[in-house]
Amino acid sequence: MSASPKGFRFATVSAGFRKEARPDLALIVSDTPATAAGVFTTNRFQAAPVVVARENLAARPVARAVVINSGQANACTGDEGMTNCRTTLDLVGKACGIPAAEVLPASTGVIGAQLHMDKWREAAPRLAAALGQNTHHDFARAIMTTDAFPKVAERELAIAGTTVRLVGMAKGAGMICPNMATMLSVVLCDAAVAPEAWQRLFLDAVDRTFNRVTVDGDTSTNDTVFGLANGASGVTVEGEDLAKLGEALTDVLARLAYMLVQDGEGATKVMRVKVSGAVDDAEAEAVARTVGHSQLVKTAMYGRDANWGRIVAAVGRSGASFKAEDVVVTLCGVELFRNGQPTDLDFDTLLREPLKGRDVAVDIELGAGTGHYELLASDLTHDYVNCNADYRS
Amino acid sequence: MSASPKGFRFATVSAGFRKEARPDLALIVSDTPATAAGVFTTNRFQAAPVVVARENLAARPVARAVVINSGQANACTGDEGMTNCRTTLDLVGKACGIPAAEVLPASTGVIGAQLHMDKWREAAPRLAAALGQNTHHDFARAIMTTDAFPKVAERELAIAGTTVRLVGMAKGAGMICPNMATMLSVVLCDAAVAPEAWQRLFLDAVDRTFNRVTVDGDTSTNDTVFGLANGASGVTVEGEDLAKLGEALTDVLARLAYMLVQDGEGATKVMRVKVSGAVDDAEAEAVARTVGHSQLVKTAMYGRDANWGRIVAAVGRSGASFKAEDVVVTLCGVELFRNGQPTDLDFDTLLREPLKGRDVAVDIELGAGTGHYELLASDLTHDYVNCNADYRS
Repeated sequence: MSASPKGFRFATVSAGFRKEARPDLALIVSDTPATAAGVFTTNRFQAAPVVVARENLAARPVARAVVINSGQANACTGDEGMTNCRTTLDLVGKACGIPAAEVLPASTGVIGAQLHMDKWREAAPRLAAALGQNTHHDFARAIMTTDAFPKVAERELAIAGTTVRLVGMAKGAGMICPNMATMLSVVLCDAAVAPEAWQRLFLDAVDRTFNRVTVDGDTSTNDTVFGLANGASGVTVEGEDLAKLGEALTDVLARLAYMLVQDGEGATKVMRVKVSGAVDDAEAEAVARTVGHSQLVKTAMYGRDANWGRIVAAVGRSGASFKAEDVVVTLCGVELFRNGQPTDLDFDTLLREPLKGRDVAVDIELGAGTGHYELLASDLTHDYVNCNADYRS
Repeated sequence: MSASPKGFRFATVSAGFRKEARPDLALIVSDTPATAAGVFTTNRFQAAPVVVARENLAARPVARAVVINSGQANACTGDEGMTNCRTTLDLVGKACGIPAAEVLPASTGVIGAQLHMDKWREAAPRLAAALGQNTHHDFARAIMTTDAFPKVAERELAIAGTTVRLVGMAKGAGMICPNMATMLSVVLCDAAVAPEAWQRLFLDAVDRTFNRVTVDGDTSTNDTVFGLANGASGVTVEGEDLAKLGEALTDVLARLAYMLVQDGEGATKVMRVKVSGAVDDAEAEAVARTVGHSQLVKTAMYGRDANWGRIVAAVGRSGASFKAEDVVVTLCGVELFRNGQPTDLDFDTLLREPLKGRDVAVDIELGAGTGHYELLASDLTHDYVNCNADYRS
């Protein structure tokens, strides 16, 4: 087993939130108060744990624990849901001897139903008792919903001659039948970092990674990423070393983000849509998202079809400014489109093998400026429809 | 057979643009010059016929003929494509004794390939010779590509004691495998209308109808709607009667727009997404489009699943301003969501039968203002993926 950052303990138990018996309640406790940051869904409907976690972090950017349940999202649950969420933090805090205000909550699962508080009351002491008996791999497994595999990324770096460790765990990405689900992630670091610096590194890393992946373009009520840095390695990161830590943090989140797309519901492909030559980065992003969200491009990739026409059509309706004759579209290194027309290459032959692979590179040069953007997107498959069209009648 | 507007003749022939032998070249000729208007794709990649038709209408809003070929889109074909398009108008104009500048072209089919000009040369005289031997129903059939059925809507109205007739023909909506296709429509009227008035009525009618339907959110290089009013009924529409004609025109286009969604690739449902109570109409439109384009909402409708959570999540990420607790979501008349929570109704039972029908009404009240918008959208089905994921390997 790979080494986890120092000073964090893990616990997972089966609280019975789900139909099947499996760990569905997961806890991380830091031995000492950790500098904490969070990024949350931008959806206007925000689940109770999102509201409460925001409040806790706004009051003081310090946390001792993260508790995540799967099976119930506690979203669209009104005042009762808010009260229940706060009660779960009291229960976990009391069981662990930690102030409830230093526990960060996240939930994933069916929305609209109230939490089973009796199960929380029964499980909280067991969860506290299990601390240290589980690993971050167990944690990653316990927060899974329809994920096909647990998602963990680790990284070490040397700072001032000492090893600093980072580990990230994540779940989700696609939405889940019969109700919507969530992208949750926690990244832990055993360096000491000042709150403002940690928040800046963290927001920047999230923006470069999780904010640049898409499965189906949806955003849940519960999406949450937490970052905790507890200083247990004895290393304080500051000054020039911050960039080094930021790079490592981005690397960890990038690997998790890739896994989220790879595990997109029914996905067989990870498209890397790279747009360059836009008027500005915002227009490059608009192009990348229009292509990455296009049902026609997604089904073409699933069908291993070098369909430049669908890519070009998506670029053309993105709202970005460019001249049609300046656009160059390249798929897996093969130039498909230039000078407003398809190139003379024999795409089908050249791309037969590359399009069988999991990774598909879509490069779009607009020739209008220096703006650029990169996005990871999944394909659209029969299994996506199978998973999301749940015949009830 | 229902009566067609006076003074228009139709011809369809098989020119051999398609693999199968079927009519693939279609012509309408007005006996006299008709007031003409056009609405075209907003895609930055515009097919040659779109560019040429724009030019002809900009030079003079009058047309004698519309010629449409299916099988070849003449899009992404560069200067040669432009020259070819103009040559086809010369060929048709010469065969019919009409100035080429008064012929409006549209094309649909595979993009990136040059027109088969030899076939055009061979077919143009046959097309002219067939004029009057076909009906507008034949025309609607000849412009079909993957359409499951021809799309025709008719309407009569009495103005100044005389009958004025309108007829509209349309094809497409979904994009077509292996390349993208197109929404094409032509509406004919035998009233006389001044160019500015006709254009205003036409643009308004298109905006209320074709611009408010979606299958997969894509816009092709070739999308075109033409409207011709030739005055052959002997009735001139002006003053207060214009509103009456506008209403009839909108009715014709609305029925065609509905058929386009109904015939969306693999579609089993027509969702009518009605948003009210937005801060303004633009925000209402943003909500309607986010819901109507959501893969998760579309698959839920296919699955006959009263999944309020997916609707609410789409509303929440639309970017519109509202308070979560003010939103009311109603599906087929059953209130699913109010006060930030699902209602107490037994959705599954209440909606079992309604969700089996083709028409599904999604009503979203935001409680933030008076803005409203309505959109027709198809569902997302196994057949959509079948049609669009064309395994080549």
